[in-house]
Amino acid sequence: MFKINSEYTKLPENYLFSNIAKKVNAFSMANPDKKIIRLGIGDVTQPIAPKIIDSLHKAVDEMGEASTFKGYAPDLGYEFLRSAAAQTDYRDRGCDISDDEIFISDGAKCDSGNIQEIFDRDNKIAICDPVYPVYLDSNVMAGRAGNFNEKTCMFDNVIYMPCLMENGFAPQIPDKTPDIIYLCFPNNPTGATITKKELQKWVDYANEKGSVIIYDAAYEAYISNSDVPHSIYECEGARNCAIELHSFSKNAGFTGLRLGYTVVPKDIKAGGTTLHALWARRHATKYNGAPYIVQRAGAAVYTEEGQRQIKAQVSYYMENARIILEGLKSAGYSVSGGVDAPYIWLKTPDKMTSWEFFDMLLNECNVVGTPGSGFGPSGEGYFRLTAFGSRENTLEAMDRIKNRLSAF
Amino acid sequence: MFKINSEYTKLPENYLFSNIAKKVNAFSMANPDKKIIRLGIGDVTQPIAPKIIDSLHKAVDEMGEASTFKGYAPDLGYEFLRSAAAQTDYRDRGCDISDDEIFISDGAKCDSGNIQEIFDRDNKIAICDPVYPVYLDSNVMAGRAGNFNEKTCMFDNVIYMPCLMENGFAPQIPDKTPDIIYLCFPNNPTGATITKKELQKWVDYANEKGSVIIYDAAYEAYISNSDVPHSIYECEGARNCAIELHSFSKNAGFTGLRLGYTVVPKDIKAGGTTLHALWARRHATKYNGAPYIVQRAGAAVYTEEGQRQIKAQVSYYMENARIILEGLKSAGYSVSGGVDAPYIWLKTPDKMTSWEFFDMLLNECNVVGTPGSGFGPSGEGYFRLTAFGSRENTLEAMDRIKNRLSAF
Repeated sequence: MFKINSEYTKLPENYLFSNIAKKVNAFSMANPDKKIIRLGIGDVTQPIAPKIIDSLHKAVDEMGEASTFKGYAPDLGYEFLRSAAAQTDYRDRGCDISDDEIFISDGAKCDSGNIQEIFDRDNKIAICDPVYPVYLDSNVMAGRAGNFNEKTCMFDNVIYMPCLMENGFAPQIPDKTPDIIYLCFPNNPTGATITKKELQKWVDYANEKGSVIIYDAAYEAYISNSDVPHSIYECEGARNCAIELHSFSKNAGFTGLRLGYTVVPKDIKAGGTTLHALWARRHATKYNGAPYIVQRAGAAVYTEEGQRQIKAQVSYYMENARIILEGLKSAGYSVSGGVDAPYIWLKTPDKMTSWEFFDMLLNECNVVGTPGSGFGPSGEGYFRLTAFGSRENTLEAMDRIKNRLSAF
Repeated sequence: MFKINSEYTKLPENYLFSNIAKKVNAFSMANPDKKIIRLGIGDVTQPIAPKIIDSLHKAVDEMGEASTFKGYAPDLGYEFLRSAAAQTDYRDRGCDISDDEIFISDGAKCDSGNIQEIFDRDNKIAICDPVYPVYLDSNVMAGRAGNFNEKTCMFDNVIYMPCLMENGFAPQIPDKTPDIIYLCFPNNPTGATITKKELQKWVDYANEKGSVIIYDAAYEAYISNSDVPHSIYECEGARNCAIELHSFSKNAGFTGLRLGYTVVPKDIKAGGTTLHALWARRHATKYNGAPYIVQRAGAAVYTEEGQRQIKAQVSYYMENARIILEGLKSAGYSVSGGVDAPYIWLKTPDKMTSWEFFDMLLNECNVVGTPGSGFGPSGEGYFRLTAFGSRENTLEAMDRIKNRLSAF
């Protein structure tokens, strides 16, 4: 008789987004005349830029002609995209990353879920709290997280690094030594960033302890401050300890196109092999390459015209972020994020729980956000809004909050 | 100090396709005037059909307009594609599969590698020998296969089911009871098929023993004989024991577009849960949906025009298969497959090893195929040719073999 992976059953049901959907539907049914504004899920709303659309059409035409048809892509990605990414995202910034250290994939979510596979079950992981749930859940499924404690809402074999207002939403070096450290800057969900100097401390710590940092740089395009690094490889020694995840979703609107890449430097070694070789083997065995047409779209991102167009989109969203940040501040809220990040993290007023604030925001302003408690126990009492809406909706949402839900 | 997944190091280096590439390159360098014909790798060569190209262009245009832009796809696939697949591939054939038992993915390779994750490490797997390497390798990486025996070229915790000329390349019910049984019909690499009556025996066996069958139907479009089932769900009781993998690669030329799906009926239960719920959880945690434009392309496959066009492509390849099969027979070879499958499996003459035959075929005829030993120990002494080349190349390859490498 076959047996299931019982680790899966340790995952608490994730009701976050389905609960949100249920509550929004119920409100909508009861109030059909009310216009609901959604600033909850981190999905983009601007269409794909014209230069990228052109490249998609061209690639589609190639697939329709025998002489230019492309079958299986190279497992690790087309050379034209790997080299463009390594050059523009790394070498042009002074980071020493070679083309063949770039592994093209169908997105950072898959990679952030799959990367733990190349590590032994017996590794201790450290995560920020609150956190993007995939880092934790994928380790739970692999049996690396231990058991869930219903009281603390924590897994007993995971090191949680609380990110709270008191510490500027920055994780502190933990007391226990982790083997694998997940970091994400600019952060989802808090919108916090890290300076190069602070990030260097983590790199030094990892190299000292023999830990690996899995660095999620999905939101690096939103950085404008010069002391905030776009890549962990701006820090000395990062080639020896850090894997970096990169997405095309938030900088170029690829959430529905699916493209990302992971950087695994050849210098991270253990047990007579490199993580680079292990990740290459995983790709070769369990992955079959991102679609040619999508990789061509990715290459268009790196053209001069593509860069100009996607930067305009990022600016559009960042103006939304500014509007939300200023709007909430002027309404008396305690807020952070939103400067080098598309997420705004607010402290709920009057010690309300995250869900109480959700209900109030929905009922009073007909605005949907995400309860911070959905991202981990230290997210309780916080709330996330995103800058990915339209300008019109963002402005209207802030007007409603200022008029009806001032924290004063 | 972090530790790597040491199970990865148990995988023997897979030199099959890199060895082929090396030998072909060396020959090419030494003989620049010789035209090499490649009938080795199972990649298609015909361009994507016009109806599908049209749907891709339309979907690309949608992504370029704010009013029709699509962000994150549903994790499990768009309803329009799930329902088309369930209706056309199953319900129209009398198989009881509901839309929400279809999980859309970026291809059958990923799914066949990932599906083992929802099972406990402590399950015994059975595979055909020779076999598509992903089934075995993904289980090795998960620590389920035991250790590799250099002498037998087998893993010591895996049940191998030899498929040889003596048994018509059909696996026999094994002596030891497996928990998970991988079956693939029409088979890659042997091109063998199974009748509904024979497949029913496997379904009955699995239900009796509480085993799960992972049924790879990637090549079902090549079936023309009416007693060969297109789906395992044509067998009674399969909803209680079988998962089915489906690909758009070989029926519609999607090797470079990436689309597939896996069917997990809700009736397969263990440990208080269903495999359906576990696979849904895996998708939600580690996957982010196939690209919208590719799912639209998939939907075009199911239109009347799409069906007509892809059937013409399959017929084109099957005529190649017929040419290879007849050509090899008339040259005196002992061959199988190639009737309801795009693969032709030949016995090497004069007790040559698979690689000896490879070298001879390359040197004498400048034709590239795949040594059977690359698919498992029972593949030794066999050789695979594929029907996915162009007509012109296929005809020329057969002429060369008949003229220069007759087995008589």
